[in-house]
Amino acid sequence: MSFNDEAITIHYGLCAAMSQCFSIFDILENPEHDSFFQSFAVRKIAEHGIVCDAGTTENSIFIVLSGELRVYLSCEGREFTLFTLEPEAVFTTHAKMSVVATKPSEILVTSLRNFENALKTIPGLSVAIIGSMGRGLGSAVRIIEGLVFRDVKQRLIYFLLDLANERGCKVHGGVSITMDYKIEEIATLIGSSRQSTSLILNELIKSGYILRVSRKQLVIRDLRRLKRLTESEELSDWEEEVCPIPLVGAAGRRN
Amino acid sequence: MSFNDEAITIHYGLCAAMSQCFSIFDILENPEHDSFFQSFAVRKIAEHGIVCDAGTTENSIFIVLSGELRVYLSCEGREFTLFTLEPEAVFTTHAKMSVVATKPSEILVTSLRNFENALKTIPGLSVAIIGSMGRGLGSAVRIIEGLVFRDVKQRLIYFLLDLANERGCKVHGGVSITMDYKIEEIATLIGSSRQSTSLILNELIKSGYILRVSRKQLVIRDLRRLKRLTESEELSDWEEEVCPIPLVGAAGRRN
Repeated sequence: MSFNDEAITIHYGLCAAMSQCFSIFDILENPEHDSFFQSFAVRKIAEHGIVCDAGTTENSIFIVLSGELRVYLSCEGREFTLFTLEPEAVFTTHAKMSVVATKPSEILVTSLRNFENALKTIPGLSVAIIGSMGRGLGSAVRIIEGLVFRDVKQRLIYFLLDLANERGCKVHGGVSITMDYKIEEIATLIGSSRQSTSLILNELIKSGYILRVSRKQLVIRDLRRLKRLTESEELSDWEEEVCPIPLVGAAGRRN
Repeated sequence: MSFNDEAITIHYGLCAAMSQCFSIFDILENPEHDSFFQSFAVRKIAEHGIVCDAGTTENSIFIVLSGELRVYLSCEGREFTLFTLEPEAVFTTHAKMSVVATKPSEILVTSLRNFENALKTIPGLSVAIIGSMGRGLGSAVRIIEGLVFRDVKQRLIYFLLDLANERGCKVHGGVSITMDYKIEEIATLIGSSRQSTSLILNELIKSGYILRVSRKQLVIRDLRRLKRLTESEELSDWEEEVCPIPLVGAAGRRN
């Protein structure tokens, strides 16, 4: 069973608490570990450069030193963004996932075996990693929650509300948000197509929930009213519904 | 941004390699750690007993000693099973997730603070945990892949094929599988409703892909033919599709 065959650990609370105390950069910067980290290779990746694709067979581990990378799943030309890696993130290349630099980035790469040795000899390294993994699991569970319990319109609205909460500015007539995302990027984040995402965003604009000031600038008129829209919709009956996910592609193998 | 704000670590390869070497039971059974683990409380949970529900505010950590527990998300009466916890799994209670015993179980519970102390003082404990977390992340990513790239029919077929691969018996006329799952349990595993799951299973039976021998016994006539069904469907166009997930419920908050 793919969904539930494996015993699993989730450590949200633990990680939230611990990530305050340990940073992988503290460990990297400690001169005691210099000799060890010298065996890591620094790799510079240009914007849009691929670190690994879904077919990779090499298991290496990298630490992000600078920049930003996107981890995504792909299937028959469609993509779904799982996470963004920022400085301090530790990541293992894996056959299912592709990693691309969204900004010029620098990573520190080593083999799996090398990293296992580091885990045994450097106290604090595994604690930093548990923190990072916990945040990853938290993200993954939130993604699953969104995919299972919300439709595309609801996911888009939550995306916009999150943006507003994170970086919105109060302006006359609402909360202004700068859209650093292209429509296709939003689509890969909410698990939809470019067309559907664009259609729903335009509906929200037409019906007055959102004002498009410029290509990159939106104003949410009333956060609460937009939020209510996710609650007051006439919802289709879960029990009656036959196809929560469209027939979008079939050839992807489970394992 | 809920989907990508956090730096994340995924350690499949690392964990697969390391979980061979370390077991949390080895650590529990080491007399050196007796004094520490005495501060953990043993808790027995009857079948169907709740360990924690989605509203829990207490952050504790438990190790599964025996039995089986189900971790699930819920929203307005609907459930989605994330993982099954088996002996050796380590899990932190968390506000978003509910845990229920599917078999009579025994767990070892402690506070977050207590566990953090254990991590600092017991070598090997964090390595065992990284292994367990990595398997959890692997499961979560497979769930996301299924939800994003497959429809309910495809997910049900993969579920049946996985069952056949895991525990199927070759019989005259196909591969026999024992269904220990009720339809509603399968529905919570594939992210669908009981009705839809039942409808699709009945379609597969009517069209001869599957033979129902008894309530608990199915025979898949031809694994390859069933697998091909996930590939040869006339797929709706991803680009045209508007609503990959139905309007199934709205009130669940993202955070």
